[in-house]
Amino acid sequence: MTVMAYGATAGDKPLEPMTIERRTPGEHDVAIDIAYCGVCHSDLHTVRAEWSGTLFPCVPGHEIVGKVTAVGGGVTKFKVGDVVGVGCMVDSCQHCASCDEGLEQYCDNGFVGTYNGATDDAPGHTLGGYSQSIVVNDRFVLRISHAEDQLAAVAPLLCAGITTYSPLRHWNVGAGSKVGIVGIGGLGHMGVKLAHAMGAHVVAFTTSESKREDALKLGADEVVVSRNAEEMQAHANSFDFILNTVAASHDLDQFLALLKRDGNMTLVGVPEHPHPSPNVGALIFRRRSIAGSLIGGIAETQEMLDFCAEHGVVADIEMIRADQIEEAYERMQRSDVKYRFVIDNATLAA
Amino acid sequence: MTVMAYGATAGDKPLEPMTIERRTPGEHDVAIDIAYCGVCHSDLHTVRAEWSGTLFPCVPGHEIVGKVTAVGGGVTKFKVGDVVGVGCMVDSCQHCASCDEGLEQYCDNGFVGTYNGATDDAPGHTLGGYSQSIVVNDRFVLRISHAEDQLAAVAPLLCAGITTYSPLRHWNVGAGSKVGIVGIGGLGHMGVKLAHAMGAHVVAFTTSESKREDALKLGADEVVVSRNAEEMQAHANSFDFILNTVAASHDLDQFLALLKRDGNMTLVGVPEHPHPSPNVGALIFRRRSIAGSLIGGIAETQEMLDFCAEHGVVADIEMIRADQIEEAYERMQRSDVKYRFVIDNATLAA
Repeated sequence: MTVMAYGATAGDKPLEPMTIERRTPGEHDVAIDIAYCGVCHSDLHTVRAEWSGTLFPCVPGHEIVGKVTAVGGGVTKFKVGDVVGVGCMVDSCQHCASCDEGLEQYCDNGFVGTYNGATDDAPGHTLGGYSQSIVVNDRFVLRISHAEDQLAAVAPLLCAGITTYSPLRHWNVGAGSKVGIVGIGGLGHMGVKLAHAMGAHVVAFTTSESKREDALKLGADEVVVSRNAEEMQAHANSFDFILNTVAASHDLDQFLALLKRDGNMTLVGVPEHPHPSPNVGALIFRRRSIAGSLIGGIAETQEMLDFCAEHGVVADIEMIRADQIEEAYERMQRSDVKYRFVIDNATLAA
Repeated sequence: MTVMAYGATAGDKPLEPMTIERRTPGEHDVAIDIAYCGVCHSDLHTVRAEWSGTLFPCVPGHEIVGKVTAVGGGVTKFKVGDVVGVGCMVDSCQHCASCDEGLEQYCDNGFVGTYNGATDDAPGHTLGGYSQSIVVNDRFVLRISHAEDQLAAVAPLLCAGITTYSPLRHWNVGAGSKVGIVGIGGLGHMGVKLAHAMGAHVVAFTTSESKREDALKLGADEVVVSRNAEEMQAHANSFDFILNTVAASHDLDQFLALLKRDGNMTLVGVPEHPHPSPNVGALIFRRRSIAGSLIGGIAETQEMLDFCAEHGVVADIEMIRADQIEEAYERMQRSDVKYRFVIDNATLAA
């Protein structure tokens, strides 16, 4: 099946309309008409070939929400008309220790990304959600139970949502926890909403005074401008967990100092240039730790979607037409978005 | 009571014999005739004023083993003649969250070090185990059940032992764990022995081929020379836990790469110059973490001593006379010791 998509033919070329092929659904496949696709920083890094290994043509997009239009004969979990989602992964080895534990994101053999991953389908690598439809193995399709009018705002849950949900759960955030969220962007604003919904006392850290009011509206109990040493000092040794969503190189020590004994700070952004080396004394003297976390497994992504439906959590979004993607990328690079662009994929038909 | 000690009057002066005062045991005090005192790197850093804040005269020593000579009226746990130990702490606030949990090493108000800590006793700061006797509150005195002829080799358990035991326990090392110990010195040789006694598969990492045989004798199942990239690569993604005892600045990434998903590397040495900043991707892509750990609480130190008595674990030591301490320091700086110097405190009387 030939469908319309938006993608680039080289790292130095703008995204443009193109046609791509989708496979005929196999025994365990689900064919999905894509309604909305969120715009993630990874899309931009990949399509601009800022990370190594981009395969062209490149069609980004891994925050996909749509409706099932066909299912293979072996598919029992989904039927035509179901509202479903697809996130960052469309396959994994299914037989390593991580896959066995439902942690496909840590697949020992490497999961297959929703775009730029290896596939037998033409053109030999996966093409993502900036397209009219997609065909995905049913194991990697998620059920969505939000209301119809929330679906655009659900799309970013598939990457930004699970990327923040997973470490919050892994490090046992809940009622009684004091949690910091560093950076109030696409990831951070989800972190604030999710930690709040989990019952934690949430402190949002931002470098800009201008985000104070917005962070409170998102659900933060307190907002700290991290350039203000006095505000920071008032929270010394008090956090159970800090989720650091900032990818830009920055001083980790100022946040480590805010962790309680045994507190953890988890990083979900890979900096282009290394962070200044964290202070080992800050780790030793309160048995603190620094960890990383990568999206989440399929089972946990379903759990997150169900949790969000139950708690009325969606992303704050700005809807765009497909032909606005270059402008959206420019604004995203200036952090000029509250807080996630979502493509209305119906505009691909035009 | 006036007793003989070995200490320094300034950071640039050698240690020399001196007399110091010990308080009359109070209601909850235990007076101890010191038989042996281990020599820790911290002793050297402190007495040479390499760390800030050294108070002089300085009498180092916090790996103390001896016999009780007197107890206060309120002491019920110890009696004259008991073999006891004193480690890095002689007091703490006893009312913060950490003290309440038996984690006095993380006392929110700062524990009182066995030397260079605040005290009402003359000269206003604590004086350590390079001395004939010490008087310590009974809460900070440990019971020792090793055989009489093992007591000199027990002394290093009070710092090197607990510093390695505590993180091994905290990160759940046991039968079935694959554990790395980085650095085979005073701390590391204890790490190998303890992890082995806990039933783990132990891999010792050393930079020098010459330590291979010795590490196997200490109980390592395997030895890896960390400069050998091929040997390192063979262990990629395989460790549950790595205890890194190396204080010198070094590349942490080569060890992070050896951790399994969810593996942790705990650092117990504070480098003089920062380590190269660890690779955030190495943390994110397998949810690995880096932590720190500081000695251990009193209850856990007792647990460690009992564990060591039960499993026949002691340090490998080289006994010295008090007047050999300067020579011992020089050799320790060259890592020319297997693996801990212990002062025979009887030689202080001479």
